[in-house]
Amino acid sequence: MNVVMPSLSQALSDAAAEVEQALDALLPMAEGDEARLFESMRYSAMGGGKRMRAFLVLEAARQFNVSRTSALRVACAMEMIHAYSLVHDDLPAMDNDDLRRGKPTNHKAFDEATAILAGDSLQCHAFTVLAEEDTHPDPAVRIELVRIISRASGPRGMCGGQMLDMMAEQATAPLDEAAIGRLQTLKTGKLIEVSADAGAVLGKAGLAQRHALVSYARDLGAAFQIADDILDATVSAEEMGKATGKDAGAGKATLVGLLGLERARLQAERLVAQAKAHLDGFGDRADMLRALADYTIARRH
Amino acid sequence: MNVVMPSLSQALSDAAAEVEQALDALLPMAEGDEARLFESMRYSAMGGGKRMRAFLVLEAARQFNVSRTSALRVACAMEMIHAYSLVHDDLPAMDNDDLRRGKPTNHKAFDEATAILAGDSLQCHAFTVLAEEDTHPDPAVRIELVRIISRASGPRGMCGGQMLDMMAEQATAPLDEAAIGRLQTLKTGKLIEVSADAGAVLGKAGLAQRHALVSYARDLGAAFQIADDILDATVSAEEMGKATGKDAGAGKATLVGLLGLERARLQAERLVAQAKAHLDGFGDRADMLRALADYTIARRH
Repeated sequence: MNVVMPSLSQALSDAAAEVEQALDALLPMAEGDEARLFESMRYSAMGGGKRMRAFLVLEAARQFNVSRTSALRVACAMEMIHAYSLVHDDLPAMDNDDLRRGKPTNHKAFDEATAILAGDSLQCHAFTVLAEEDTHPDPAVRIELVRIISRASGPRGMCGGQMLDMMAEQATAPLDEAAIGRLQTLKTGKLIEVSADAGAVLGKAGLAQRHALVSYARDLGAAFQIADDILDATVSAEEMGKATGKDAGAGKATLVGLLGLERARLQAERLVAQAKAHLDGFGDRADMLRALADYTIARRH
Repeated sequence: MNVVMPSLSQALSDAAAEVEQALDALLPMAEGDEARLFESMRYSAMGGGKRMRAFLVLEAARQFNVSRTSALRVACAMEMIHAYSLVHDDLPAMDNDDLRRGKPTNHKAFDEATAILAGDSLQCHAFTVLAEEDTHPDPAVRIELVRIISRASGPRGMCGGQMLDMMAEQATAPLDEAAIGRLQTLKTGKLIEVSADAGAVLGKAGLAQRHALVSYARDLGAAFQIADDILDATVSAEEMGKATGKDAGAGKATLVGLLGLERARLQAERLVAQAKAHLDGFGDRADMLRALADYTIARRH
């Protein structure tokens, strides 16, 4: 794995830089009094994050020789949706967070009303980007992207998961393993799955290949979540660059809390192996996706 | 006009009933803990409003023999977007309204976090509905709908208008006529224009016909806005079924405040005549759209 890691980290940072540049172009500043809205959108969409969703789009698209322009536009749309969800989750009425990626959250840097609007606008703009002809010459490809991405982020996907999370915080009994799994599948899993699927759709992949990539992303996302919970429970805040031990403090149900560290680690390893197995039908070009799976549990922040 | 009005009001209430039924089918309840999210979405999308955006989709689509199923799905998507914008506008951080259409606003009936999520979900679900094959067999039509509707409701449309409105409330100098016009065009005009355009897109109308219907809707929307401001300034709250005199009280810039009642009335009449002139190329089938234009300034609530 030491052989693979440097090239993965290089690929991740190269992709992040490309995505940053593409977001800059797709979120131009406006003149006039609404400039503040565009500033607020750019503040949260740009300048940070692992860009894991974007990376999945790009690497899935690579399997099918998709043009870099197409893949980058879809990668940016996914990051806009991810960013909007974070802006709204951070609001006082939701998680009430003051910091995100080491800087003030959107409603702290601007104000609540602007943050609500910026989130709404980022979601909306993601669909505009997907719908525009530059994303793919074939309208059938573009509308399939809108269909799968809107489903994954809507009430039967990410928004539904956020609702489950809110209900869980008010619940009297702790969630069991199945309920935690369902919550995480909806809240973060669906968007990770659809990122891989979107790259495949751009490449007009067959259903079997789409299914393999979605299954890979599902296991990857689940492993990543467990690894995150393990890091939250074990690593110092300084190393992570954000508050840790927060989940346990907030009484949030995690698999680590339910299974204990050791069994959680084993489960994450099993998921990584399973994720890679879904890529058996793909050649060397999928090596970066394999390395990403290994990285989810090897990382230290 | 007395001859036309009964049939317009019948058509409006028939359309509203059809839209209600279609929304019921497009927003099915979910099982499980996320049921509250679906309840909240249904609470705000269903059971009220003039359904003017839906009516414009349906009547524009009628010009081109569009199937009723297609037209109704797009009408519902427009109403979901309109509903989401109201849910978010009513939030404490925005307009902080407790009542909407005579019942508690979404965040009063549920809670703030649920209202934010329900708004997010309604926006997202509108795009899912547009993207699904049942909306139109041709993917090029469906993606054009997503493109124009996302543009009209995003940062260069409705969301941008809401930002302008917020900035205007903090401004030291009152807005001039051009600034008020721009604010209203973005905040409410774009969505009304795109409703008519969407009906035309469903019918694969040519650019000239699309342009005529968009121009009609632009003038209709502007006339409607002035008429609303006139009613707000002159009619008792009891007659309107909502608080009136609120705009003047809140120091909100309106054309009525700027031009005075008489000149505002004349301008609304001019806009209605202009709206109808855009329909000159359409036959009898556009009579309902003509009647709707007359109605905007004839209505008493």
